[in-house]
Amino acid sequence: MAKAEKYRLAQIVERFGGEILGDPQTPISQVATLESAGARHISFLTHSKYRKQLASTGAGAVILGRADSGLTKLPRIVCDDPYLYFAKVSALFNPPQAAAPGVHKTAVIERGTTVPASASIGAGAYVGRRVKLGRDVVIGAGCHLGDGVEVGAASRLYPRVTIYPGCCLGRRALVHSGAVIGADGFGIAQDNGTWRKIPQVGRVVIGDDVEIGANTCIDRGALDDTVVEDGVKLDNLIQIGHNVRIGAHTAIAGCTGIAGSTRIGKHCMIGGAASIVGHLDIADRVIIHAGAVVTKSIEQAGTYGGHPAENNRRWTRSMAHLRHLDALRERVRHIEQQLSLPEEKA
Amino acid sequence: MAKAEKYRLAQIVERFGGEILGDPQTPISQVATLESAGARHISFLTHSKYRKQLASTGAGAVILGRADSGLTKLPRIVCDDPYLYFAKVSALFNPPQAAAPGVHKTAVIERGTTVPASASIGAGAYVGRRVKLGRDVVIGAGCHLGDGVEVGAASRLYPRVTIYPGCCLGRRALVHSGAVIGADGFGIAQDNGTWRKIPQVGRVVIGDDVEIGANTCIDRGALDDTVVEDGVKLDNLIQIGHNVRIGAHTAIAGCTGIAGSTRIGKHCMIGGAASIVGHLDIADRVIIHAGAVVTKSIEQAGTYGGHPAENNRRWTRSMAHLRHLDALRERVRHIEQQLSLPEEKA
Amino acid sequence: MAKAEKYRLAQIVERFGGEILGDPQTPISQVATLESAGARHISFLTHSKYRKQLASTGAGAVILGRADSGLTKLPRIVCDDPYLYFAKVSALFNPPQAAAPGVHKTAVIERGTTVPASASIGAGAYVGRRVKLGRDVVIGAGCHLGDGVEVGAASRLYPRVTIYPGCCLGRRALVHSGAVIGADGFGIAQDNGTWRKIPQVGRVVIGDDVEIGANTCIDRGALDDTVVEDGVKLDNLIQIGHNVRIGAHTAIAGCTGIAGSTRIGKHCMIGGAASIVGHLDIADRVIIHAGAVVTKSIEQAGTYGGHPAENNRRWTRSMAHLRHLDALRERVRHIEQQLSLPEEKA
Repeated sequence: MAKAEKYRLAQIVERFGGEILGDPQTPISQVATLESAGARHISFLTHSKYRKQLASTGAGAVILGRADSGLTKLPRIVCDDPYLYFAKVSALFNPPQAAAPGVHKTAVIERGTTVPASASIGAGAYVGRRVKLGRDVVIGAGCHLGDGVEVGAASRLYPRVTIYPGCCLGRRALVHSGAVIGADGFGIAQDNGTWRKIPQVGRVVIGDDVEIGANTCIDRGALDDTVVEDGVKLDNLIQIGHNVRIGAHTAIAGCTGIAGSTRIGKHCMIGGAASIVGHLDIADRVIIHAGAVVTKSIEQAGTYGGHPAENNRRWTRSMAHLRHLDALRERVRHIEQQLSLPEEKA
Repeated sequence: MAKAEKYRLAQIVERFGGEILGDPQTPISQVATLESAGARHISFLTHSKYRKQLASTGAGAVILGRADSGLTKLPRIVCDDPYLYFAKVSALFNPPQAAAPGVHKTAVIERGTTVPASASIGAGAYVGRRVKLGRDVVIGAGCHLGDGVEVGAASRLYPRVTIYPGCCLGRRALVHSGAVIGADGFGIAQDNGTWRKIPQVGRVVIGDDVEIGANTCIDRGALDDTVVEDGVKLDNLIQIGHNVRIGAHTAIAGCTGIAGSTRIGKHCMIGGAASIVGHLDIADRVIIHAGAVVTKSIEQAGTYGGHPAENNRRWTRSMAHLRHLDALRERVRHIEQQLSLPEEKA
Repeated sequence: MAKAEKYRLAQIVERFGGEILGDPQTPISQVATLESAGARHISFLTHSKYRKQLASTGAGAVILGRADSGLTKLPRIVCDDPYLYFAKVSALFNPPQAAAPGVHKTAVIERGTTVPASASIGAGAYVGRRVKLGRDVVIGAGCHLGDGVEVGAASRLYPRVTIYPGCCLGRRALVHSGAVIGADGFGIAQDNGTWRKIPQVGRVVIGDDVEIGANTCIDRGALDDTVVEDGVKLDNLIQIGHNVRIGAHTAIAGCTGIAGSTRIGKHCMIGGAASIVGHLDIADRVIIHAGAVVTKSIEQAGTYGGHPAENNRRWTRSMAHLRHLDALRERVRHIEQQLSLPEEKA
């Protein structure tokens, strides 16, 4: 990371708003957790679990919500959303490291591709024919960009990303190592006991401001494209099947799989290790819990979980009932005894 | 993809059978979905969900099943299995792109390995000692083939595939980027509170016509080999443990994990994100639903699902009952009141 | 693998203990399974499932537990823990293959990094600035080590491992192909319907004797470090979120995901495809079954499973009851009939 500058609390509030309690001249040189912060660090409280640490923190200042503003006497910034505020302050102290422009001598650039002077192409990277690279792109060492790939301005591919031919990334993309964009979708048809491959000739088309985690896979479409809209955030080891569409500003946690042709709405939050079967429609603003197995379309915004997934409150209640099934059986047995009924074989 | 040729409906039916309704001279230059097809495209109807799109499609012709032949007046091919038919027609219009033979100047070929003149070895690929490559193999850029690896004729490894020493791929394999074949199985023995590694000296042996998805892992055997039989199709991000055997023509969807020494039968279909524990036997023609957690051997062909997995109809019924447990408890409470029994503590 | 030496049973027992029954001069040149062993092989029985194979094995000798010592007349080593004993014997016959020291001519070593004479750096590997490499490290072909990375003595990275800047591996690490260590954690904050990235400036710090499977991802910390303690064993395709801590000598099977800030105790065993949500504490010596979805902290050693995870015996019993819910409903209906109560709508 680039060397951080110093700011005083007052300068931070000038940029990001909020209210200072305590000395506005408190100097801050970095963000840190309550547990590890020192006198020049600003820390934050966003999760009630960590309140105990507030009492003993060595931080020079703290960011917290209005309800918690009385929990410490340290210099502090009080704001509506301390997690968002912390995100902004951390970005101020930790700007992304710049990559030196230029093409490494071991990189391979095929004919028909022009590398902008502002771009950085790492060691051993391979850039195919007719690839379109925007300004300030960073293509990490060992990346592979197939023929006709497009990468929008200011995008950064970490080392060893693979993009198959014809796929498009928007601007300001962040793609982590091992991600594979545009491999064939799992399209096979049964043919007398064997499988016949269906050519996968669609592309993957990814909007602006998308982040893609390490070793995540997004398959190309069978005929039409697989689409990831603007602002989508994908964690690691996610599988996106062919012809899926993921709506803008949806966030998906790691190990989740979404099968072919399913459409996910905008502003959804999908928990880790969820599985969503193919050909479904998931509405906007749906929240899906970790481990959910979604087998039907979801038409209403809300929170869903379980296996099979349903309204999460209902699932949680069902599973609680299940734990008391023993007792219910006992009650039925008791009634049967009272009525001198024979207990039926379970 | 290579530039597609043009065919008339009559020529297509001559190759693949089926019956034409409408003008047999209708010219077709590509396949497309109902939604995006134009006048020179042939489309298809295989999923009732898409019937509505048939009315408004711009396609020049359509492939459909006998039961659906009256749903449109467009020129059409009527056949028994429109999905399979579409697969064949799409392959006709979208043949795999040929790779130029030759070894890229940045590839490394170790001693004792002969590259056939028809083979294509991409930029930065590494081919170890005594590797056996069949005719027409394509080894993508950045692939790694350890010593003694064998790759059968007409196989294609997309960029950045890793094959550990001694592992064997059959003919016409397709292996997608990031796949790792032959890493050590997870073999460890407890030794006074620490773990002692068990050497993994078996190989991975893969039959003909196998497709392996992006970032999928197939571990080498501990002593004997891990075996994937002919015609198996594996999607992305699948984990195959050591000494697993997968029967011929089984298809496995993404994010599925199969633990060590389990044997999967032939012609099985395993849904996405299924987990199968170790040392089990799964019969031929078993269908396992997405998200199933299989903890016992399955001796009969059939459809299984759930956690733990059981006959899928039974699981589905159990989960439906679970949703009505509330009502059942209420009925028991009501009976207890009628009998003036005390309600037992749940 | 290096060429194996020959040993006599007596020499094996001299090294590893145990008792010989039969000819102590029996010559052994390799380990093998009961099914595939020949006269010069020593095999082993650790799983009752394989007892039948003992009768027909072609092995020259067998390792088995005291209770099973009478099951064969073959020369045999009787010991307390035949699996551990086999691990030791297999390691004796299958020492790791040495890598030739030296830097491949196609590798890139940046300024400020010194490669020990005993180290091996493979073809196309990239080693950034100020990287610290211990003695006898093996960095496989195509690996990527970012600036400031540390790799302890005698560690081996298989081909195509990625380590982001600043991350540290201890001694004797084994890291398999495709693993990504130190990618950004999934830290995002909501900001008026879009997501704002939180810089991930912590590191990944990994202890001694850790094994990391193929395509496994361990994210760097948001502020503090993600920590994997000594002796941890991770299988393939595992996701470890930012700021997770995994206690010493814990083993985790493939496809498991652990969300951010969760702490896993020491000596735990976590089954395949388990999901553990964020901000939890899991005690020492906890066993978690395959497919479990852990949504709450676990304070007691024991065995847990299910979705949501609970005491595994309780989960198993609940799921068994669930299968009999049909019968229970029938009993309640019968009681209602006896009492001439109206059956309530389910």
